[in-house]
Amino acid sequence: MTQFSDVDRLAVSTIRLLSVDQVSKANSGHPGAPLGLAPAAHVVWKQMRLNPKSPKWINRDRFVLSNGHACALLYSLLHLFGYDLSIEDLKQFRQVGSKTPGHPEYELPGVEVTTGPLGQGISNAVGLAIAQANLAATYNKPGYELSDNYTYVFLGDGCLQEGVSSEASSLAGHLKLGNLIAFYDDNKITIDGHTEVSFDEDVLKRYEAYGWEVLNVANGDENLEDIASALEQAKKNKDKPTLIKLTTTIGFGSLNAGSHTVHGAPLKADDVKQLKTKLGFNPDESFIVPQEVYDLYHNSTIQPGAESEKEWNALLEKYAGEYPKEAAELKRRLAGKLPENWESKLPVYKPTDSAVASRKLSEIVLQSIFEDVPELIGGSADLTPSNLTRTTNAVDFQPPQSGLGDYSGRYIRFGVREHGMGAIINGLSAYGANYKVFGATFLNFVSYAAGAVRLAALSGHPVIWIATHDSIGLGEDGPTHQPIETLAHLRAIPNMMVWRPADGNEVSAAYKVALESQDTPSVIALSRQNLPQLDGSSIEKASKGGYILQDVENPDIAIVSTGSEVGIAVEAAKLLAEKNMKVRIVSLPDFHTFSRQPKEYQLSVLPDRVPILSVEVLSTSGWSEYAHQSFGLNRFGASGKGPEVYKFFEFTPEGIASRAEKTVAFYKGKEVLSPLNKAF
Amino acid sequence: MTQFSDVDRLAVSTIRLLSVDQVSKANSGHPGAPLGLAPAAHVVWKQMRLNPKSPKWINRDRFVLSNGHACALLYSLLHLFGYDLSIEDLKQFRQVGSKTPGHPEYELPGVEVTTGPLGQGISNAVGLAIAQANLAATYNKPGYELSDNYTYVFLGDGCLQEGVSSEASSLAGHLKLGNLIAFYDDNKITIDGHTEVSFDEDVLKRYEAYGWEVLNVANGDENLEDIASALEQAKKNKDKPTLIKLTTTIGFGSLNAGSHTVHGAPLKADDVKQLKTKLGFNPDESFIVPQEVYDLYHNSTIQPGAESEKEWNALLEKYAGEYPKEAAELKRRLAGKLPENWESKLPVYKPTDSAVASRKLSEIVLQSIFEDVPELIGGSADLTPSNLTRTTNAVDFQPPQSGLGDYSGRYIRFGVREHGMGAIINGLSAYGANYKVFGATFLNFVSYAAGAVRLAALSGHPVIWIATHDSIGLGEDGPTHQPIETLAHLRAIPNMMVWRPADGNEVSAAYKVALESQDTPSVIALSRQNLPQLDGSSIEKASKGGYILQDVENPDIAIVSTGSEVGIAVEAAKLLAEKNMKVRIVSLPDFHTFSRQPKEYQLSVLPDRVPILSVEVLSTSGWSEYAHQSFGLNRFGASGKGPEVYKFFEFTPEGIASRAEKTVAFYKGKEVLSPLNKAF
Repeated sequence: MTQFSDVDRLAVSTIRLLSVDQVSKANSGHPGAPLGLAPAAHVVWKQMRLNPKSPKWINRDRFVLSNGHACALLYSLLHLFGYDLSIEDLKQFRQVGSKTPGHPEYELPGVEVTTGPLGQGISNAVGLAIAQANLAATYNKPGYELSDNYTYVFLGDGCLQEGVSSEASSLAGHLKLGNLIAFYDDNKITIDGHTEVSFDEDVLKRYEAYGWEVLNVANGDENLEDIASALEQAKKNKDKPTLIKLTTTIGFGSLNAGSHTVHGAPLKADDVKQLKTKLGFNPDESFIVPQEVYDLYHNSTIQPGAESEKEWNALLEKYAGEYPKEAAELKRRLAGKLPENWESKLPVYKPTDSAVASRKLSEIVLQSIFEDVPELIGGSADLTPSNLTRTTNAVDFQPPQSGLGDYSGRYIRFGVREHGMGAIINGLSAYGANYKVFGATFLNFVSYAAGAVRLAALSGHPVIWIATHDSIGLGEDGPTHQPIETLAHLRAIPNMMVWRPADGNEVSAAYKVALESQDTPSVIALSRQNLPQLDGSSIEKASKGGYILQDVENPDIAIVSTGSEVGIAVEAAKLLAEKNMKVRIVSLPDFHTFSRQPKEYQLSVLPDRVPILSVEVLSTSGWSEYAHQSFGLNRFGASGKGPEVYKFFEFTPEGIASRAEKTVAFYKGKEVLSPLNKAF
Repeated sequence: MTQFSDVDRLAVSTIRLLSVDQVSKANSGHPGAPLGLAPAAHVVWKQMRLNPKSPKWINRDRFVLSNGHACALLYSLLHLFGYDLSIEDLKQFRQVGSKTPGHPEYELPGVEVTTGPLGQGISNAVGLAIAQANLAATYNKPGYELSDNYTYVFLGDGCLQEGVSSEASSLAGHLKLGNLIAFYDDNKITIDGHTEVSFDEDVLKRYEAYGWEVLNVANGDENLEDIASALEQAKKNKDKPTLIKLTTTIGFGSLNAGSHTVHGAPLKADDVKQLKTKLGFNPDESFIVPQEVYDLYHNSTIQPGAESEKEWNALLEKYAGEYPKEAAELKRRLAGKLPENWESKLPVYKPTDSAVASRKLSEIVLQSIFEDVPELIGGSADLTPSNLTRTTNAVDFQPPQSGLGDYSGRYIRFGVREHGMGAIINGLSAYGANYKVFGATFLNFVSYAAGAVRLAALSGHPVIWIATHDSIGLGEDGPTHQPIETLAHLRAIPNMMVWRPADGNEVSAAYKVALESQDTPSVIALSRQNLPQLDGSSIEKASKGGYILQDVENPDIAIVSTGSEVGIAVEAAKLLAEKNMKVRIVSLPDFHTFSRQPKEYQLSVLPDRVPILSVEVLSTSGWSEYAHQSFGLNRFGASGKGPEVYKFFEFTPEGIASRAEKTVAFYKGKEVLSPLNKAF
């Protein structure tokens, strides 16, 4: 039996050549992997459920090109399968301002996640698969299979070597995500040459150890039937994710096939010609798509996909009759809207309320809203009792047969896998359905996930990092656990909110802005130690990112601070008042949000003619944007009881007050310009 | 047959109780793992080759506590085995200023690497094992086994879940490091509870897939004989690293044994008492070491270790007679000295020399010194042809039976494993013998290794990151590969040099300072694109971290810049000169080194009364330390040809010149203070 004809083979050749032509035209890019992977791409895409006219339809199958450098392949597919990507766009491959950049970017319809940094895509895919399992368990009813899509992944040796993919794959095996099917392009070639120089582990055995089903296709270059039957088998196994190893030849058909010279550089002109001739194409023409290839995909995929969506919409309407509450909720989520008045549940505090650690305040927020915001899902990288992220009634997201939870659960046990968690929450967020996703660890270990955090910001996934133990205040665990450079790092990432709330109202504000964000991720840095509820804070004011917490007329100095140091600065101001020094206290919980306020507002908070001292018990790097003088910690911390360590580094009312006095003395008689006033 | 007596069991109990007492006294710490691991610690340490009076002896066995939170165990061992760590020190556990911080730190004699951040220790150990294999292959001769030590590791579930350990372990298997023996504490407990909630993969199968030998000890809590025979078998296998799974009970002996409550909190007072009673100790006494335990270790280990070193010293002297050249070289290295006049090999450039990419200039440096500096070792995370890190005559560090190189090779194929590479080079550097170690990747992907980079700085390992493709200048690969926040991040890490050299002389300077560094790591950020050789640069000047490249009398403005933008700033200055604007050009290749210069020198470079404009095509964050106004890139980049992308963002002579004019206009008539002048 064969389900494939000459038109199929023509389609594979078309994918190959469209990809090669893009790279040649740009004189830059990666032709090798597309040439090897075109057959698998053809087989997978032909049977995918997708509607190019409705690229965000929630029940579409997802495709993730984890080896994102092979993006010419993806662009060819998007064009051939009817997405809004023209031949002209393919000709603009890798040019400034084009829709076809050097690695696939989330903003292009049909690109499910931004890939390129290796190991991320397969890990995002675990998040996409978790989202599908959760959506299905939440909304499917007998006779109403509203969610049942697959997530397909292509990945190469590079992705498999990255630790982030090991972390995510181990978790995927544990979670028994049968909706996840990955194709491993085993072409034996990386940039350094043959994989034998550094990577001769038994990949399939490793994935079996993770709990995956593993399959083998001996000739991935040509054998469409074998690819299709492996795929079929993978889809039958609902209890495990599947890894299908395709043995392929990098640059298949090229004169340099099988060598690393075809990995990252265009084929030579004569090589392209011989390849076209060999595949039955005119060697002098480029960017050619035979009409029968368009027709093939139209009939196999595009037309049925549009039908599928139509049926799905009808099913949803029928569902709405039988399950009006669930349907309304799902429709709300699909519209990208949070529940009406959800923010009224956010706790509000008075200065007389007791001092509470901001990690605990975060727990109270989660506890207050978790039931009412069904799209809220997340967990911790094995620090649940420290991060305080699990609400009392939460159900764990676990395979139902484990007895530990089920797929409708919204608390994820990520294990000690920060980078994997970061990539998984990105994928979960990218799924749609308004998923609001959080991941938690100590602030210092957000750095382990830097690769994923950056991609959240670049892609605009509004994920939330709950980052507790946010300073030397964590105490005894010492310098290995105490963040110093972390906030400077995170704040320097474009499109990233980095909240460090000072009290309960500010914690509520951070969650409010973070959850309402459509395309900016957040880190919320939280203390281990108790913080007083401050006079002058409110959700509304803190939601601006920065505001005057306490003021005086004609201040001699403004102290601008964040998080646990704001309360100490308030005490310092009292000491200074005894010496007749007038202090304005500014709380600046998030630089990014503050920088989005009107310039006038910003200058009303940090005006000209007032020396500004910043106080934050981490690196001072980046603070000169907002302060003339900075009191911080430009060295590693120390192991000891939290209060002792604060005292050791002089982060006390007295320590701040003496530095404020020095600052006022230094600027006395000098012209003082707000750091916000710039030449351009 | 049994090799263990009652005194051994008494020793195990002593280790257990000393560890518990530390945690109880501090009322903070992790008693669970020490209680479970004491038997293995006893068996391993008793047979280790070590000399506590000479803790840096090069041929000592190494011990790495990868689960660093169990450090009370390590401190107990260091005390019992005669290191400079008193009972009084143990009583100061986790106190400010003590020698016994909350996680083990490299500066304490006997602590081979700083651990605590999970996954790092086992990965460092791969580096320690590589170093031993390399040293042996380089200096051992028939009859002269100068190097033959083992590296032992304890690690827990947490370390095994971290991607960094997957990366390093896969490479260790590939490299067939038979000198590496790891004990996996399979206690089934992590902070979130039972490992079944997130980690039920088959660890031993996974390690077999990596190419490790795997062994099993069923009762790690008590069966000293089984532990010893597994260890013996591991030592026999010279062709593979070994993972020995110890099934243990966390908190063995405690009333809460086997539960996660004993992981990270002190035992209750009555629990400690019952434990002491059960182990035959006086429940009312603490920090007790029976004399026979001191005696046991003295006889089994300390005395033989001292003898061993004496014999080794004699062997080295004999070797010096037969192999005077090798011996002299080894002795020089052991003294921590680079070869005499090595720096004379560093290339020097004139302004008339042709423009060259700084990644290529880096290659020329490596090529010039590689033969002469035998302690130089390193490689790339699968970007060799892009990073240009492999010198022509280099031999790959590979298992000899692979036919791809041998253990005397000094070029390491790390694979696509940035974080693993980072942890491995830290371990290699920690080995001693003056190893000067480099790892290479794109600057943007140094972030993947942030966890290891930070530990290099905290521990003071003078490793070198060769970080090419250091800006949007890399072009077509686009925003996923173009660093923006990366330099801000790295510069905010204490004790970290971050070089971004502007031309050939500055590249030589960066290597000079980096290689001469004893305890500060370096990142050297290098361009993909060609850079002109600058008039005014020199190795000597650049070695100060910052200097006046080109000057005029009474400048109207100083432009301070780094790397690829310095040459453009020089062109901008020419444009401005045509408009009668006088420009000083300052090159600031490394903030850290510049900040170590005398204040007077710094102020001579960036003085009062001159507005300063910084120009660097990455995030401006951190630049306010040195400039009044910053021209940078506070958004993600773009895919396109490098020069096109530079033009798009106006990083051209014209773009810089117009911003310089705005800066001068803005500061006209204002009092201008050097940003270096501060109140404190």
